[in-house]
Amino acid sequence: MPLLGLSLIERVILSAREAGIEEFVVVLGYQGKLLSEKLGEGKNYGINLHYVYNSQYSLGNGTSVLAAKKVLENEERFLLLMADHIVDPEVLKEFSFQKDKDDSLLLVDKDLERVWDLEEATKVWVEDSYIRDIGKKIPRYNGVDCGIFLCTPLIFLALENSRARGEYSLNAGIKELAKQRKLKFYPIKEAFWVDVDTWEALKFTRKKLLKSLISDRDGMVSRVLNRRISTQITRFLIKTKLTPDQVSFLSLITGLFSAFSFGLAFPVFGGVLAQLSSVLDGVDGEIARLKFLRSKYGAFLEAMLDRYVDALIILGITYASYQALPKLEVWILGFFALMGAPFSMLAKEKYEALTGKPYLPYKYDGWFRYLPAGRDGRLFLIMIGGILKQLVATLAVIAVVTQVLTIYRLYSVRKLLKE
Amino acid sequence: MPLLGLSLIERVILSAREAGIEEFVVVLGYQGKLLSEKLGEGKNYGINLHYVYNSQYSLGNGTSVLAAKKVLENEERFLLLMADHIVDPEVLKEFSFQKDKDDSLLLVDKDLERVWDLEEATKVWVEDSYIRDIGKKIPRYNGVDCGIFLCTPLIFLALENSRARGEYSLNAGIKELAKQRKLKFYPIKEAFWVDVDTWEALKFTRKKLLKSLISDRDGMVSRVLNRRISTQITRFLIKTKLTPDQVSFLSLITGLFSAFSFGLAFPVFGGVLAQLSSVLDGVDGEIARLKFLRSKYGAFLEAMLDRYVDALIILGITYASYQALPKLEVWILGFFALMGAPFSMLAKEKYEALTGKPYLPYKYDGWFRYLPAGRDGRLFLIMIGGILKQLVATLAVIAVVTQVLTIYRLYSVRKLLKE
Repeated sequence: MPLLGLSLIERVILSAREAGIEEFVVVLGYQGKLLSEKLGEGKNYGINLHYVYNSQYSLGNGTSVLAAKKVLENEERFLLLMADHIVDPEVLKEFSFQKDKDDSLLLVDKDLERVWDLEEATKVWVEDSYIRDIGKKIPRYNGVDCGIFLCTPLIFLALENSRARGEYSLNAGIKELAKQRKLKFYPIKEAFWVDVDTWEALKFTRKKLLKSLISDRDGMVSRVLNRRISTQITRFLIKTKLTPDQVSFLSLITGLFSAFSFGLAFPVFGGVLAQLSSVLDGVDGEIARLKFLRSKYGAFLEAMLDRYVDALIILGITYASYQALPKLEVWILGFFALMGAPFSMLAKEKYEALTGKPYLPYKYDGWFRYLPAGRDGRLFLIMIGGILKQLVATLAVIAVVTQVLTIYRLYSVRKLLKE
Repeated sequence: MPLLGLSLIERVILSAREAGIEEFVVVLGYQGKLLSEKLGEGKNYGINLHYVYNSQYSLGNGTSVLAAKKVLENEERFLLLMADHIVDPEVLKEFSFQKDKDDSLLLVDKDLERVWDLEEATKVWVEDSYIRDIGKKIPRYNGVDCGIFLCTPLIFLALENSRARGEYSLNAGIKELAKQRKLKFYPIKEAFWVDVDTWEALKFTRKKLLKSLISDRDGMVSRVLNRRISTQITRFLIKTKLTPDQVSFLSLITGLFSAFSFGLAFPVFGGVLAQLSSVLDGVDGEIARLKFLRSKYGAFLEAMLDRYVDALIILGITYASYQALPKLEVWILGFFALMGAPFSMLAKEKYEALTGKPYLPYKYDGWFRYLPAGRDGRLFLIMIGGILKQLVATLAVIAVVTQVLTIYRLYSVRKLLKE
């Protein structure tokens, strides 16, 4: 089942890879051959995939776990994932690094209000650190099973016991473990998870994933405007084979065309292209995140090329302004706009290089976060200025807002570093 | 005894503070009161200082360690430092974090050739991980005692035993520990250490400390030229009360004067001031390092203000060039020079933000490290161009070298991130 460019199981596998997991055992059942042909040996995903076939899959999902027993019984611990449970990779990372070696751990959502389709969910009753009861219909519950387990091989014994009683579901085995006080829980925090069983759940997940692309590092224009457009473009482009690098290239070209348009005295066109380049500048990162294709070099290259595009657009605007109003002051204004442009990035990167933590404009810039001085803001100003054909004013506004923000950050970073 | 703005004992204490140590016991003897009055309770140094008086100090330095017994006998471990042994704080950090809980550790230099005054040094014979013999005159030796110990309270017992035999030196106690196979050694690596007992040793240490200010992050002009001048200025200014921030301010003002001088058509003066500002830009960091006054905010503020100075100097040069040769092309050239200037920093900071490791131009830029495209290089070019009154050529060279280096770094960072 495709969802934003990846099948559900691919997303589960790649989320786990992002959490540092490299060895996978896939238990096949219904349409098993189709699945194993699609996934292969895992080389495409940078992992190792092994397969186990469960001929009894129709009896219950406990039999699928048991089918993997011979492969996993000598492991100290393993992660048990459902192919249709989508969860934030960060949660998986945090969860799978839990060091509590003796017990099995179940990921539990205690915030019942946000659970998608609570009625269909598997509920749990937890006390202290332990799961006490589990099932779709239990007398009282204070959490929901997210379907993600950190198991010890004890699970196989528990499943065999419940199978002996004629119960074939995974829940039956888990209940067995819970009775023996061998199953602790780990609470999921902010992040989202969904058990994708219906079309509605699929739509909900898509919406959630797209929303998760809005980053704490985004500027105001990006949060309020650009991301709304870029995520819609991403939603469309992600179905194609377009890579993040190709989209970066498109953004670069669009930016260069914007610069030329300004230089050739087509400011309206130039302005619209500048904003389009800015929106596309979000799309590449979004595709990279959704398809697990992020690379440090990609981020580096994009950051460098963006600064060139910025500078050339300002050059184009200054050149056109000077043609219309041939005064020395126009160039000086252009100089100040060009001087101010890289400071937003310089301050953020220097802060991160010094502290190891990202600078979050939305949090740290106070009221100044509304100043369009970051890249998103500047290119938005350029669109407005281009459409209104007010090029000199655009340069002046950029020159002022960028210096004001920089001065504010000299203050805000001082405060941050003292904390 | 002052050495580059700090007394020897202050340098020892502050080096240890940089290694994370916050509680100090100073054993007083000769001129003890003078010392305790100077150092106070340690508030000036951001640490806690306690004092112990040793009335028997003239008998031997073992009695000084024993004087601290009542304060330290219940500690698991403590670091024993000589007030006149100067060592790189990095070594102290590495050494004091050694986790080998049971044994005492002695810092040993196995590279005999570099030892200052080998004849006077305390030699050791080490086998496996253990110190087997120690003394100024021992039959055979393969290392030198750096005078830095990580001790357990066992040292007190050993010293008491040797005192009972009428031996009062620390070495006697150490020999005792070594005999019991209770003393391991830790080899000092690249970094330097000196036992400052003579004027010659003091001079040697000053030279070493000044040389250690040349950083792996420096560009070529800085390594070959600026540091030679700046360390001499630092050697002089460090005796005064001038703070690093005040020197940064001086560098900023000098840079602004350079920009104005160019703008007012005094290019020779402007060029010399630009280079002076560049040299002073090294001095503030050097004073901060030598006096243990480094701050992250200082580094942040300086980086931001430097970019403003850069931009204003280029504006001044462009303005003056345009006055002499009123052509549009001059401004476009100035634009490209201004555009290229921040890229050296942008690339380095982005790399460090992404990887957590510094970008080292000298190592990573290959043959391109000879391009004067970093800040040191650009301001050097500006001095040459100013003196030769070749302003347009200066802009052109800056525009070219900065873009060439940026393009090379797109390649070198790719290589680094793949490794």
